[in-house]
Amino acid sequence: MSSNQIELSPLKLTSLASKPERTKIKVGTCVFGGDDIVIMAGPCAIESPEQYIATVDSIKKSGGHILRGSIYKPRTSPYSFQGLGDEALELLHYVRHTFQMPIITEAMDITQMEKLADIVDIVQIGARNMQNYSLLRAAGRLNKPILLKRGLSATINEWLFAAEYIMVEGNAQVILCERGIRTFETATRNTLDLSVIPIIKSLSHLPIVIDPSHATGKRALVELMSKAAVLTGADGLLIEVHQNPEKALSDGDQSINHQEFKHLVDELQPITSLRKEKIKCSR
Amino acid sequence: MSSNQIELSPLKLTSLASKPERTKIKVGTCVFGGDDIVIMAGPCAIESPEQYIATVDSIKKSGGHILRGSIYKPRTSPYSFQGLGDEALELLHYVRHTFQMPIITEAMDITQMEKLADIVDIVQIGARNMQNYSLLRAAGRLNKPILLKRGLSATINEWLFAAEYIMVEGNAQVILCERGIRTFETATRNTLDLSVIPIIKSLSHLPIVIDPSHATGKRALVELMSKAAVLTGADGLLIEVHQNPEKALSDGDQSINHQEFKHLVDELQPITSLRKEKIKCSR
Amino acid sequence: MSSNQIELSPLKLTSLASKPERTKIKVGTCVFGGDDIVIMAGPCAIESPEQYIATVDSIKKSGGHILRGSIYKPRTSPYSFQGLGDEALELLHYVRHTFQMPIITEAMDITQMEKLADIVDIVQIGARNMQNYSLLRAAGRLNKPILLKRGLSATINEWLFAAEYIMVEGNAQVILCERGIRTFETATRNTLDLSVIPIIKSLSHLPIVIDPSHATGKRALVELMSKAAVLTGADGLLIEVHQNPEKALSDGDQSINHQEFKHLVDELQPITSLRKEKIKCSR
Amino acid sequence: MSSNQIELSPLKLTSLASKPERTKIKVGTCVFGGDDIVIMAGPCAIESPEQYIATVDSIKKSGGHILRGSIYKPRTSPYSFQGLGDEALELLHYVRHTFQMPIITEAMDITQMEKLADIVDIVQIGARNMQNYSLLRAAGRLNKPILLKRGLSATINEWLFAAEYIMVEGNAQVILCERGIRTFETATRNTLDLSVIPIIKSLSHLPIVIDPSHATGKRALVELMSKAAVLTGADGLLIEVHQNPEKALSDGDQSINHQEFKHLVDELQPITSLRKEKIKCSR
Repeated sequence: MSSNQIELSPLKLTSLASKPERTKIKVGTCVFGGDDIVIMAGPCAIESPEQYIATVDSIKKSGGHILRGSIYKPRTSPYSFQGLGDEALELLHYVRHTFQMPIITEAMDITQMEKLADIVDIVQIGARNMQNYSLLRAAGRLNKPILLKRGLSATINEWLFAAEYIMVEGNAQVILCERGIRTFETATRNTLDLSVIPIIKSLSHLPIVIDPSHATGKRALVELMSKAAVLTGADGLLIEVHQNPEKALSDGDQSINHQEFKHLVDELQPITSLRKEKIKCSR
Repeated sequence: MSSNQIELSPLKLTSLASKPERTKIKVGTCVFGGDDIVIMAGPCAIESPEQYIATVDSIKKSGGHILRGSIYKPRTSPYSFQGLGDEALELLHYVRHTFQMPIITEAMDITQMEKLADIVDIVQIGARNMQNYSLLRAAGRLNKPILLKRGLSATINEWLFAAEYIMVEGNAQVILCERGIRTFETATRNTLDLSVIPIIKSLSHLPIVIDPSHATGKRALVELMSKAAVLTGADGLLIEVHQNPEKALSDGDQSINHQEFKHLVDELQPITSLRKEKIKCSR
Repeated sequence: MSSNQIELSPLKLTSLASKPERTKIKVGTCVFGGDDIVIMAGPCAIESPEQYIATVDSIKKSGGHILRGSIYKPRTSPYSFQGLGDEALELLHYVRHTFQMPIITEAMDITQMEKLADIVDIVQIGARNMQNYSLLRAAGRLNKPILLKRGLSATINEWLFAAEYIMVEGNAQVILCERGIRTFETATRNTLDLSVIPIIKSLSHLPIVIDPSHATGKRALVELMSKAAVLTGADGLLIEVHQNPEKALSDGDQSINHQEFKHLVDELQPITSLRKEKIKCSR
Repeated sequence: MSSNQIELSPLKLTSLASKPERTKIKVGTCVFGGDDIVIMAGPCAIESPEQYIATVDSIKKSGGHILRGSIYKPRTSPYSFQGLGDEALELLHYVRHTFQMPIITEAMDITQMEKLADIVDIVQIGARNMQNYSLLRAAGRLNKPILLKRGLSATINEWLFAAEYIMVEGNAQVILCERGIRTFETATRNTLDLSVIPIIKSLSHLPIVIDPSHATGKRALVELMSKAAVLTGADGLLIEVHQNPEKALSDGDQSINHQEFKHLVDELQPITSLRKEKIKCSR
């Protein structure tokens, strides 16, 4: 019987064999792949300046390190809220400078990537675009860290080859992000297998972070799975925070509110001591 | 327990409720969604003018209707053959005119789509790009039939919403293509569920075709599953044919050779009578 | 990276290599694995003598060959109807003799198997018990054909090894039954991959039948998928028929009524000619 | 579109709604569902008295609480080692009394269950038998704790209904055991979703333990996933330990050796303080 695992040439750039020392990626005062556990947080989508600034302010005070917040949103339906788009570019710029915090946001195509490159600190490639090779190659030509989410049903091997597409174009700053895979189970939005963390670390030198919000799709599980992810060795977290999740224009079910986020950050501290790694990026 | 099925607004344009008569899409002398069973065939990738012309010639003689043949190839590894690229645009143009047959080929980004739009008859959006919304919207602005492959782990609902992205921009010529889904089973490359055909027909007015080559990943299964697909109501087939599959630069395991293709076309004839539909597009 | 495919010793008894000629299993006037396409039909569960006899009478007149009808029902919930149990054994005996038709019914444990062995013609081992090795071994000690359903997430390899457990005990009369596998897709109850038929035929000499009722879970799909299964080479079908599916105590959504069953049998005739095989067992 | 989630009557006995206080199950000096984190360990299969006694001795010294060790083994192939069978019943008895430690072992059918009931402290129902309803009912008539493993592709709902089958017969001592589910990913033997722990705790009062050995299938992942499981709230662990994993007759790839087990137990201590729960059962 044959296999769905196609024979592939070896990973030349992403593999641990090719580069035994871990890749360290500095963003603001944080380092992915070093001792830090980098907390990226913010709303799924930026809905208005007021909403974004209120959440950003709270995240900063609670100890988040990097701000998320998308202005271009990949949505299953064209009739769902698609993000504020270009008009929010200036808001990202304003927030980044006012709050002095790095920003991560998603680009769905090359045009968006070019617009974001001058404004944000990390460009995210979403799960749906993990094998959008033109976008990966364009990301490879940026001089900017790229966060590459795992596709819904991508094998670990396919995911690393997607990272290889970025690296082969010259950009070595790739952060892998696990966000759960699609399985038969419907109790959670996706299925989060944390053993991906040690497996990736045994195969590749790239940093890996976890998105517990998409992985579980359930607010009540975010804190606990964040703690488990950190214990398991995650280099960081990507968390959806909204001031009023029930009214969020997207992903409300999986967003935690400001107080819950503060609680989560506080709860992470004792875990990190078990890893003998620091949680707070030095500031 | 909640579900991974997110509540979505209704399908406004792709649903059968929105348009009870089936969409007919004319390409050359064939009509997708009418009485024809349209046979699209050709190599996975165009490797050289000689290889392509030999296969095209054979496909035409055997009764194929539309030529496939990619010049931009999405490959898991950046080190695999990526297609001939722009330099083969002229070859596509030459073959189309010389053999007087329509051509379908894949575009992985907007730039490629624009280059292909003037030369080919159907633009394909591959499984990996099924939720590349920028590409879908660009396809929606073309005046050209689009073949939209189902994503590896896309639900039927997500697939129809991807078609909706194309239609909402103004292009009503969308052909759906099932190519198997990813499951735990490794005996085939993907798992081909033909019940997708009647389900799509009960939900949408759009034509649906089957790609038995990618669905099974095994040459020996292509003819039989093609026959079953046609019996089940497929509006067409998309088949990989190579003059020497063992030496193909991509997808050799699932490509049939010239003789096998002729045999397949011949074998389809009696099936079509059971459907009271014609197989040959009038020429 | 390792695999979930455990290395196993070769299949000694079920493989085509071990026995190149196809196994023929005679039940009544039908032969599984020969030229016949054996139609097994009846209600999911026997609910009352009146219901069963009415359906049996109709199935016989419509051209069904073997009667199904369970008296012991595996149900997800202990609070669902569990079948009539032992008290219906006499009814099975009565129906078999009165209508002169063979009967297939399910045994969930060794005690039930022993009770059924003297009364029915084929004992079914259900999907949930595919790896109930004690039951498989007991089936191997019966002198009676066994229909072995594929488990919900069993690989083809695991399924053949389950058949091997029966054969190794001395019973060579094993009929394989594909009933769909569990995947992420929820549009159908299970996912039916008909390419299993040629794959099994390339690996094993055992007959294989299809259960389109469980595979799709949808009444409207049963006839079409039955036709596709027969075209693809199935040695038979296992179909749920109920006189009033809306009122069935189990599996009503996937049961067809008497008229629909007659239509299905009539529609199968022209398909069989394409296989150059007879559909009607000689009587 | 319909769903593969069949409407079921509510869970009457296993649900948290039916019994808000957590079920506590005392085995030896340990309590499942209380403050303890119960460590069950031992070889996959008992291979010989010498092998078993050596491992038992080491597990006791390292701080394991309950001994595993199967004498009846469910194996994919009938040609694989099937366990020592009845002849090892006396060894179980001897070891239990000599080492004064409780024993858990698997029963695959009612006969085995009856033989084990007088000798062992917990009877395990394996993943392959999760919906073997005759066995579940028999377990429900025992006066003995039952460890019920989740099926390879069982939903959480189906798993709880399997527990309901045991409880409905009168046995309230059910311990749930997650051992990973089957998905498309082949980097691990199964996919371990630890979010199952809080989900089960939100739905049911039953204790839940994790089997990291089967879940990952990889020795190198067992310790780390054990720690994550404990942090996530597992009531216990079920771990495969072998004195020489490379030479084990079954599951060698996922078994850890004596030294690794000792290290694992030591490493768990600091995790438990984070849960404000004790790890050591009082002795």
